[in-house]
Amino acid sequence: MRKYYLLAPGPTPVPPETLLAMANPVIHHRTPEFEAVVAEVKGALKELFMTNNDVIIMASSGTGGMEAAVSNFLCRGDKAIVVRSGKFGARWAEICSAFGVNPIIIDVEWGKAVEPEAIANILKREKGVKAVYTQASETSTCVVHPIREIGAIVGQHDNTIMVVDGITGIGVFPVLSDEWELDVVVTGSQKALMLPPGLALISVSEKAWRLAKDSDLPKYYFDLAKERKNLNKNTTAYTPAVSLVIGLRESLRRMKEEGLDNVFARTDRMARAARAAAPAMGLELLAPESPSNCGTAYKVPEGIDGTLLCNTLNEKYAVTLAGGQDSLKGKIFRIAHMGFIEPFDLLIGISAVEAGLKDMGHPIELGKGVAAAQAILWEK
Amino acid sequence: MRKYYLLAPGPTPVPPETLLAMANPVIHHRTPEFEAVVAEVKGALKELFMTNNDVIIMASSGTGGMEAAVSNFLCRGDKAIVVRSGKFGARWAEICSAFGVNPIIIDVEWGKAVEPEAIANILKREKGVKAVYTQASETSTCVVHPIREIGAIVGQHDNTIMVVDGITGIGVFPVLSDEWELDVVVTGSQKALMLPPGLALISVSEKAWRLAKDSDLPKYYFDLAKERKNLNKNTTAYTPAVSLVIGLRESLRRMKEEGLDNVFARTDRMARAARAAAPAMGLELLAPESPSNCGTAYKVPEGIDGTLLCNTLNEKYAVTLAGGQDSLKGKIFRIAHMGFIEPFDLLIGISAVEAGLKDMGHPIELGKGVAAAQAILWEK
Repeated sequence: MRKYYLLAPGPTPVPPETLLAMANPVIHHRTPEFEAVVAEVKGALKELFMTNNDVIIMASSGTGGMEAAVSNFLCRGDKAIVVRSGKFGARWAEICSAFGVNPIIIDVEWGKAVEPEAIANILKREKGVKAVYTQASETSTCVVHPIREIGAIVGQHDNTIMVVDGITGIGVFPVLSDEWELDVVVTGSQKALMLPPGLALISVSEKAWRLAKDSDLPKYYFDLAKERKNLNKNTTAYTPAVSLVIGLRESLRRMKEEGLDNVFARTDRMARAARAAAPAMGLELLAPESPSNCGTAYKVPEGIDGTLLCNTLNEKYAVTLAGGQDSLKGKIFRIAHMGFIEPFDLLIGISAVEAGLKDMGHPIELGKGVAAAQAILWEK
Repeated sequence: MRKYYLLAPGPTPVPPETLLAMANPVIHHRTPEFEAVVAEVKGALKELFMTNNDVIIMASSGTGGMEAAVSNFLCRGDKAIVVRSGKFGARWAEICSAFGVNPIIIDVEWGKAVEPEAIANILKREKGVKAVYTQASETSTCVVHPIREIGAIVGQHDNTIMVVDGITGIGVFPVLSDEWELDVVVTGSQKALMLPPGLALISVSEKAWRLAKDSDLPKYYFDLAKERKNLNKNTTAYTPAVSLVIGLRESLRRMKEEGLDNVFARTDRMARAARAAAPAMGLELLAPESPSNCGTAYKVPEGIDGTLLCNTLNEKYAVTLAGGQDSLKGKIFRIAHMGFIEPFDLLIGISAVEAGLKDMGHPIELGKGVAAAQAILWEK
């Protein structure tokens, strides 16, 4: 029963007020009371996604939303461009393959962003590409991709949709779905939305609905057209995750009260502070050129096992950061700074890293990283 | 802010202690702390499902579990027998069709149970039937099906699996998965498990895993083989619904403390009481011959609109029952008696029905239904 500090890029901490709202007695989903919740949430989600499109609410983790973004729009044998710059880009490719879609993969070094021209070139060369799949922010490397520029390129092609995994993008930095011509944008509840995992949210443009009409891939639980009809009546096709939707209303109210611009500004300040701490601690950033504001990935110094570092922080200090995944396992650690993670929490994370590295025998002067972060956090 | 009485067959009420357990700070899922939760839960689920098979935990509502029970075991063009005796039987047929499986449908009058011989006859006549899909309890009609007998029939066929929607069966009445040769059993969190919606649970036998190896239907989020590998390491393939899994641990502990046999006996007593109230109120049961212990479906008397009755009870008395669905819309109402619904709660439900019918001008003497139920509830 120790005081626990959750600073991983998902799940992130949930505000106590939201936890208590979700602890209210469960209400039935086919009632005017719950329909009023859905009505409020669906309006607020449009503001968050910066879209006039419907934003559909599903009971699943973000990966379920990603699957829906493939199975609802494409046909067996279709071609789709996939940006693979980390674990979640790889997931797009895996989902495409599982559903019989042929992914044209743009492999990008883990820690780097994709060049929009790479997508433009493929679209020029290959006929009949139905969709482009990318992350707004690749959580496994904490890299941000130029989705605005990619959206402009894809927008020139009438029969190609732009699909964005915005799981660590929405609510972290501005994602202007309509203005940037992002046809399908997916997010999950457990990141900037400050909720436990278990909800996927997905916006769909008219251009994407046109593709959906011809899609022949099997879907049932993730049938978005069916969900759209139900959303029009402020309900869902299947039993929704009632308590999480109630929590979502709290989170959306909270973000509205702070103001989305203020949320983005706070997150950006924390992100810059987290980066400034790296050289002060003698550490290198994994992605100095295109860092995402969702979290910061630091390279583990020579001679230190990153997995052991994260385990030590968890056991000794009750601080949960995230290590590296797949090819980055043991080589990086990640501190999140989004959602209900606030500036003082970031200082806890940096302070824990300093302590953990010192514990492991790495030469580090305590306080340098924290001070560098503070200088940015309290800037005028 | 009225005191609210949820007596619908899902979602059902959640114990306050469980709501508070889920309101604890969210923990990360890739930690020894959460792995310990999964380890405890997976053991307790085996006891609940009365099986030595793995019981897989997924973030979705029950329908997602049903989809997994089709997409993981069959191939395109396969034949499967589907018992269609209500809305959820119809759902099995819809899922099969969506995935290119040919359902051989046994249509049963809504309110009646299937005859096991009907399944035996088809299995004799048709070659290559890969699976039989049925409900243990058809929630839309509150009918129980003879799954033990069907399991014995299907068990004689080496290449046919028995798949049971146990969403209002598991935790309601004994479902002896192994002894009855039930290869795949699905349930959801929001019924007898006393949790909010958002978790699907699914047990898989070795016979079913053998079919899974050859299955060519597309799946990714609901890939059970991938989940099985992760479950062996006390984790899940994708981010789990952490708070609901914590809640699940509470529910399973609660059921163990009461004792499964006592849970079943209490539920059975409530079910008999609910049925005894029908003639006392001058109402007919929809399913007098094969009623499920999950809830009781009453026919709405001549001249009364069942939908209006349910809406009135919700608005005037803050009591949520369930109406009829699809072809039964307006014709029945259902009172649940499972999970955290206790004998006194059942009396509230019956009392509300008496009051509501009287409000709508139906000749009914207050107290008769309640007294008939009490006589059974407090029997020696």
